[in-house]
Order: sequence, then structure tokens, then C-alpha cells
Amino acid sequence: MTLRVIATGGTFDKHYDEIAGKLTFGAGHLAGAIKRARLTLPVVLEELPFLDSLEMQDADRERIRDCCLASIETAIVIIHGTDTMRETAAVLGSAGIPKTIVLTGAMIPYEIANSDALFNFGFACAMAQVLPHGVYVAMNGQYFDWSNVQKNRIAGVFETS
Amino acid sequence: MTLRVIATGGTFDKHYDEIAGKLTFGAGHLAGAIKRARLTLPVVLEELPFLDSLEMQDADRERIRDCCLASIETAIVIIHGTDTMRETAAVLGSAGIPKTIVLTGAMIPYEIANSDALFNFGFACAMAQVLPHGVYVAMNGQYFDWSNVQKNRIAGVFETS
Amino acid sequence: MTLRVIATGGTFDKHYDEIAGKLTFGAGHLAGAIKRARLTLPVVLEELPFLDSLEMQDADRERIRDCCLASIETAIVIIHGTDTMRETAAVLGSAGIPKTIVLTGAMIPYEIANSDALFNFGFACAMAQVLPHGVYVAMNGQYFDWSNVQKNRIAGVFETS
Amino acid sequence: MTLRVIATGGTFDKHYDEIAGKLTFGAGHLAGAIKRARLTLPVVLEELPFLDSLEMQDADRERIRDCCLASIETAIVIIHGTDTMRETAAVLGSAGIPKTIVLTGAMIPYEIANSDALFNFGFACAMAQVLPHGVYVAMNGQYFDWSNVQKNRIAGVFETS
Repeated sequence: MTLRVIATGGTFDKHYDEIAGKLTFGAGHLAGAIKRARLTLPVVLEELPFLDSLEMQDADRERIRDCCLASIETAIVIIHGTDTMRETAAVLGSAGIPKTIVLTGAMIPYEIANSDALFNFGFACAMAQVLPHGVYVAMNGQYFDWSNVQKNRIAGVFETS
Repeated sequence: MTLRVIATGGTFDKHYDEIAGKLTFGAGHLAGAIKRARLTLPVVLEELPFLDSLEMQDADRERIRDCCLASIETAIVIIHGTDTMRETAAVLGSAGIPKTIVLTGAMIPYEIANSDALFNFGFACAMAQVLPHGVYVAMNGQYFDWSNVQKNRIAGVFETS
Repeated sequence: MTLRVIATGGTFDKHYDEIAGKLTFGAGHLAGAIKRARLTLPVVLEELPFLDSLEMQDADRERIRDCCLASIETAIVIIHGTDTMRETAAVLGSAGIPKTIVLTGAMIPYEIANSDALFNFGFACAMAQVLPHGVYVAMNGQYFDWSNVQKNRIAGVFETS
Repeated sequence: MTLRVIATGGTFDKHYDEIAGKLTFGAGHLAGAIKRARLTLPVVLEELPFLDSLEMQDADRERIRDCCLASIETAIVIIHGTDTMRETAAVLGSAGIPKTIVLTGAMIPYEIANSDALFNFGFACAMAQVLPHGVYVAMNGQYFDWSNVQKNRIAGVFETS
């Protein structure tokens, strides 16, 4: 089995730009996270344009869908912003792709102290290998079917909808 | 579903004692890692005596087995040293416990830069929820049946035996 | 000798609020940094309202000046945003306070990977003990008199003006 | 002014070797720490053989002394193990070198969570620029003359002797 990891930006990959003095996107943390995880599982990393998920448009979600359709790997992890993870999951779920697609992200950026990013990435890499074909959101140590998930923005956690 | 996490020490939980000037065990990192992971999945943490797995005796493995037998949760993650993870997995596997038991650990301690501990913990928390009953070793982004795994000490990775 | 540390916010103390999804101010990092530094030097920590230095008004600088005037310690480190560090230094310098006052900060927040905050804090704690009375900006491993310093915003470094 | 940084090993530079499963020495952290500190101060980094200071012999201290004698920079920071920092300081102090030499180190390795290394490095980089010629130990936010310092091994701090 080979795993495809598709990075689309989101909080997971936010980077502090010290000249601008704000969080933005940089070179991306997934390549580093994959190395750090000491994977012997073969992994293909695909980086799409990094976006804050609040700024994702229909065309961006369609690009992610097309990547999943084109993937020769049937186990796919998508790193995505949490705010519209559900919306992208719905686009992918409606497409009926015969693969296991797991969306995850982070509440705290990978490079910031106390980040959940690496845990979530490990969790999603496992789920993508063993869940039946379908589209899932994996956050907070749980997985949700794309058709029954929402982000509780007050508590900052995912739950069934 | 509730997850039981059993901490037994190993590299994952090694702590630098600045007075002694060496790596030893301290208060344990799992409670912190669970909080950091922002779990909404209910988790019970059970801490056994922290041991370097090279120092584990038969009685120590039997204690771990007894904890698994006594657990009312059927999804169990065991944090364990890598050097004898296979031996403990064999003791658990031979016991035929009708639960999903996933052993994981770390090559680099949780508190040291570039540690794989949090990834492995996330990976194991997923596997314990979805794999069929059995005993597994989960490292390097892969899972192995207890009866077919070994640590390659030269490369520092797990592989089928 | 006792050192007074006055925290006023700035990049050094920025904290990622995972619910709001942005950098803001939290409980402050100086108490933790002081403990981490293993100081035996007596230190008094004084926390003023945390501000982004671009939002500092005259009244805020006057409050900092009044704190320096009231301090019974003659060695003072001020943690301050970099963007208007020079302006606050000028207010303090013009006041002719007979103490050694060292302003420092960070280009990358304390809690973000690769931060210069702890280095700068150590550097300033030394300078405050040994420089003659006066007001200084200490950044980039150098110290500058308050009357001859500016931030080069393109390069993100301090230099003589 | 240019600063010379001489790295000799010690706890500051300890690195976890995940294959051997123990703390040893690797490529060294000073080059990274210098970059992270965003120094505009010119710095020359000189790396001597990395040693645990308990294993330093007379010849090792003489090599450090010779480096200080040969240095064209008059501001020198030496990164050194804490256990025999006093002994090396005494060798340097007795040599009457007309430069400012500041020895520092760390109680917790640079790459381990909660390390004091970066603070101490910043502190020493300041002291080396402003103290009169002489040999000093800089730890715990204080500086000590080489002739009046000892490590309190129970408390893990430096104090006057």
C-alpha cells in the first residue's frame, strides 16, 4: 500500500512570517512531518496551492476532488483548514470516489507549541489505511462520515451534525 | 467507544533529569499528549511502572497482560519501549484477549526535538478503534500483527519478521 | 542585585488563540521563560497591559516610564514590540532615569518554532546588569543607545540610525 | 566587534541518537542557534572536539586555552559542560589572556523541551561584549569571576565558592 498525502494549507501549515509579522503560508510542513514520523510506508506528497479554508472557492474544492479522482493510490490523507473541512468533504463524498479519503487538519499550527497537528496526521494516516472506501473527517481522536459532521466553532471541536 | 491508554515507559516517556544529567523517567508525558491532541474521544489513562523495555521481566509483561484482561474498554493503546515491543506483543497475542490491542512507542522521546512520539500515538489511537480484535504493533506509519513483526535495530524501523 | 522585568506584550508574548484562529495575547510567557532560564538572580516580574507595539499610545509609553521611575531595582529589562521599540526607548531616554534600562523583544513569538525570544531575553538580562545607566535597545546580539537606533523593517533587524 | 564562539560539547550540545538510544554528540547546535538568534553581530564559530566535560583531560583544556590565545577576536564565548566548567575557567584564568572570555553551557540540552541553552547563549554573548578582560562563568542569569565560582551539584546551579 502507498499513501497519498494532499496538502491544501489550513491552520496545520500556517507559518509565521517575521517580516510581515503575521501567520501566512511558507514552504509547508508536511515533508518535514513525514520525515519526522519515520515512515516506512511509501508516501506520495502532493502540494496544492495553500489556502486558508475560509477562502476556498468551488474551483479549489473541485481541484482537490480531481486530485483524488486522478490518484492511483486508494488511501488518501488531505490536510485541510478546519473551518470548511466539512464542505470539501461533502464535495468529495458526493463524487462517489472508490477510495478511502480522510481529511484532517489542526487547531494549532504545526510550528506552534502544543500543536495537535502531528497527532492528527498520524491518526489520519492510520484511518486512511484501514477504513472502507468513503470520505471521512478525522479530528479530536475521532472519525466522522462526511455526511454527518460539523465543526463546533465555540468549543473548537468536531462532532456529529 | 472509550479508549484505554496504558503507559509502560520506554523511549516515548524518557525524561531528561538535569541534576543526574541523564535520561530517566519522570511524571510521564501521556496526560499532556492526550490534552494536546484535543481528544473528544473518551480516554482512560493507566500508568504502570515506567520501564526501559530492555529491563522488562516476565512479571512485567504479565502485569500488562492482566491490565488488558481486566480492561472494560475493548480498544487499548499500549505505550512501550521499542526494543522488546515484540516480546510483550507475543505475550498478549498468545493470551487470546478479545480486544483490539495496539502497541506503539517512539524512537525519539516525546520531549526531544523531532520526536515521532505524537505521530505514533495518533496513529495507534486510530488503529485501536478500527482494527479487528487482535494484538498489533504500530510503528513507522504501518501496523503489524504480533506474530509477524520485528525491530530492525540497524535501521531503527519495524518490519515483518 | 535584583532585576526587574517589565512585560508589555509585543511579538515576544503573542499567543495563538485556537478558537479565534489568530495570534493574540494570553497569559504571558515571561514567568515560564524565567523559570526555564533557571535564574538564581532575583527577578521581579511586572506585567503591564499586553499591547501590539503598533497600537501603543503616548499614555502607554508614559505608564512604562512611570514604572521605570518607580522601580526600586536599577537594572530593568523591558519586553516590547519591535515596531515602536525605538519610540518607547526615546520616551524613557528623555526622562533621564538613573537606571540601566534595556528594551528587547522578538521577531518570532516565544511559542513558535525557531523563536529568537529566549536568546534576546538572556542577552538583555546580561546587558541590564553590566551597562552603565542609560536606555538601550538590545536585539540581534547587539545593543544600541536609545538615541541611535532604528528598525530596518525590510531586513527585520535593528541598526544604528 | 566580532564575537568568537568556541563549541566544546557539554550538555548544551548533547544529541539523542535514536539508533543507539542514548544522548551523545551529533553535528552540533551552535550554527543553528546563531542563525535562530538573528545576529547582525559578526560571529566566528569554532568547533573543537565535542566532549562531556567529565571526560576532559588536561590536553583538552590546553587546546581550549590555545584557541583563546590564537583568537584575533577579543570577545569569546565558550560552550562547555557544566561539571568541569570551573576547571577549564581556571586554566584560562591562570593564563592571563588579555581578552573577555565567557564560559557558558546548559543544564538541559538545546534540543530538549524547556532547555536553558538558548537563554544562556544570549546571556553569554552579551557579557562577552561588555565585561572587562578576564575569564567568567555565566550561568543562571549571573556571571562569576573564574576564581570564585563552583557548581552546586545538588541544586544544579552555580554559586560563588
